[in-house]
Amino acid sequence: MPKVKIALDAMGGDFAPEQIVKGAVLAANDSERNFDILLCGPEATVKEELKKNGYSGDAITVIDAPDLVAMDEPPTQVLKTKPKSGLVTCVGLQKQGAAVASVSAGNSGAMMAACLMILGRAANVARPAIACAVPTAKRQAILVDCGANVDEKAPVLVDFALCGSVYAEAVMGYENPTVGLINMGEEEKKGTEVLQEAHQLLKQAPLNFIGNVEGRDFIKGHADVAVAPGYAGNVILKLMEGFYELAHEVFGEVKTEKAKEFDRLWDYRNHGGGLLLGLNGVGIVTHGRADYIAIRHSLFTACKFAKAGVPAKIAEKLSAIKKAEAGG
Amino acid sequence: MPKVKIALDAMGGDFAPEQIVKGAVLAANDSERNFDILLCGPEATVKEELKKNGYSGDAITVIDAPDLVAMDEPPTQVLKTKPKSGLVTCVGLQKQGAAVASVSAGNSGAMMAACLMILGRAANVARPAIACAVPTAKRQAILVDCGANVDEKAPVLVDFALCGSVYAEAVMGYENPTVGLINMGEEEKKGTEVLQEAHQLLKQAPLNFIGNVEGRDFIKGHADVAVAPGYAGNVILKLMEGFYELAHEVFGEVKTEKAKEFDRLWDYRNHGGGLLLGLNGVGIVTHGRADYIAIRHSLFTACKFAKAGVPAKIAEKLSAIKKAEAGG
Repeated sequence: MPKVKIALDAMGGDFAPEQIVKGAVLAANDSERNFDILLCGPEATVKEELKKNGYSGDAITVIDAPDLVAMDEPPTQVLKTKPKSGLVTCVGLQKQGAAVASVSAGNSGAMMAACLMILGRAANVARPAIACAVPTAKRQAILVDCGANVDEKAPVLVDFALCGSVYAEAVMGYENPTVGLINMGEEEKKGTEVLQEAHQLLKQAPLNFIGNVEGRDFIKGHADVAVAPGYAGNVILKLMEGFYELAHEVFGEVKTEKAKEFDRLWDYRNHGGGLLLGLNGVGIVTHGRADYIAIRHSLFTACKFAKAGVPAKIAEKLSAIKKAEAGG
Repeated sequence: MPKVKIALDAMGGDFAPEQIVKGAVLAANDSERNFDILLCGPEATVKEELKKNGYSGDAITVIDAPDLVAMDEPPTQVLKTKPKSGLVTCVGLQKQGAAVASVSAGNSGAMMAACLMILGRAANVARPAIACAVPTAKRQAILVDCGANVDEKAPVLVDFALCGSVYAEAVMGYENPTVGLINMGEEEKKGTEVLQEAHQLLKQAPLNFIGNVEGRDFIKGHADVAVAPGYAGNVILKLMEGFYELAHEVFGEVKTEKAKEFDRLWDYRNHGGGLLLGLNGVGIVTHGRADYIAIRHSLFTACKFAKAGVPAKIAEKLSAIKKAEAGG
């Protein structure tokens, strides 16, 4: 049986194409790989990089995509003027059925826009979100939204919770995952108006809602799915990176078992990138500073996510809820 | 010359009165102490605790305040029904001129309300805020607001920046402190509508504004004053606590110089509590889980803050800005 294919933007991120191609080769040479890679970028450049890495296998196919996208280019402009960029091409391949997932470490706004325009939004999802699997003192938690949205209304936060919950169950294998709302106190009446309203809606939703979760308890791992407005989620995600780097600087030489485990769990290169939830397809935005280890990890995560059928499961769950609401 | 007096709520916080009184005694016995303490709580209880700690000096005066305040009691109810609580009494002593600052580890909403009602809001400050001196990879930063407010409009964030800037200059001794806006990207057009508007206002304000600061750069110490809406500020503060606890668990046995320095800087008991900015006086809300070390530190911070005349300096600065605006 032929392997599924993951489309990868060879030119996205601060260290493209070197680290991207190196990551693709690392994945291609991995004995546990259960996918092939469609590597999208300027053909000559990408082939030159593959050669540098000594790769001549058949797990990687180069797809010519000569247009280049800057990190700060407005998303709509990218879609209009750079149809042959690695970013747009790898989403297009998924639309055509040639790939099951698309990965880019490039302009994340443009990647989100490309996925929305080309793959489409899942039915019953108001606003797609970025979900990241992040470390806690217990097991990994799904943090959603990590920055795709701003100024969300309360029902949008409930969608985040539902999508994140499906992700945690289908991909992480968490049974009946706990869902917490990131807030500034445990009491229902804490937080912004939107958070207070979301709290009430989450209580009524078919979720294992455990209430508000404060920053400290989030780190302790109280919630499997942590729901936050995109602004707060993004700040949290980047604080966690900052913490990791600081700890690495202070305790880098420590090689106890506990320290090694911390290093493995908190190194954001091992987190697989941000998954776009609420699309008719699988899009991953990897960190702009992604190196080859992060890229390898994103490819494996994309494959896992696609094979678990998360987009279809989210659509099913939301459709069932809508039906129940209409009937009830 | 008689020493200035700091009023302390003996009954506030999860570990009152034991840890509070123990902290007061620790401060009273400190050779660097340049203040006396008015310890407010039920007289017999507080005297019993002082006895347990073997204290019979004259640096601590017990002020009888028999009413007890619960951590979750509505602030307005506390003000109405518990005028003889330790919390309200220690603010009242400041109003009478008997103390220069008031410290409580109790119900922070009630402490804020008591300070607002009894001491009053500084002229030209729309909404007082909680500021905390927090660790970064460089020097301490002032994080403001740490949760006194929600749903702030953009001009309120500018007030936070101005108040925080005066604090950093007057108490920390930072010359022309840098001010950053906690946001989800460096570009001006990032973040919520309020944050985008605040960014523009901050650019025009008489501040050393360095633009948006992401979570990672905040940890790196890019900004001396980090401005955030109360919701985000509170989440950040508590994440930092959670991170410290986790690091302590993982690396607790490590005793390198770097590790000891990290422990000293990141232990939130050493941070002095949250300073209420924008009042006609000095109020400190110490952590609800404050132990005697945290209480001792809060007393020293309160004294430093009062002696630096921060409230008057904030009033001066804001009045000068208003005058300039009116004239310009």
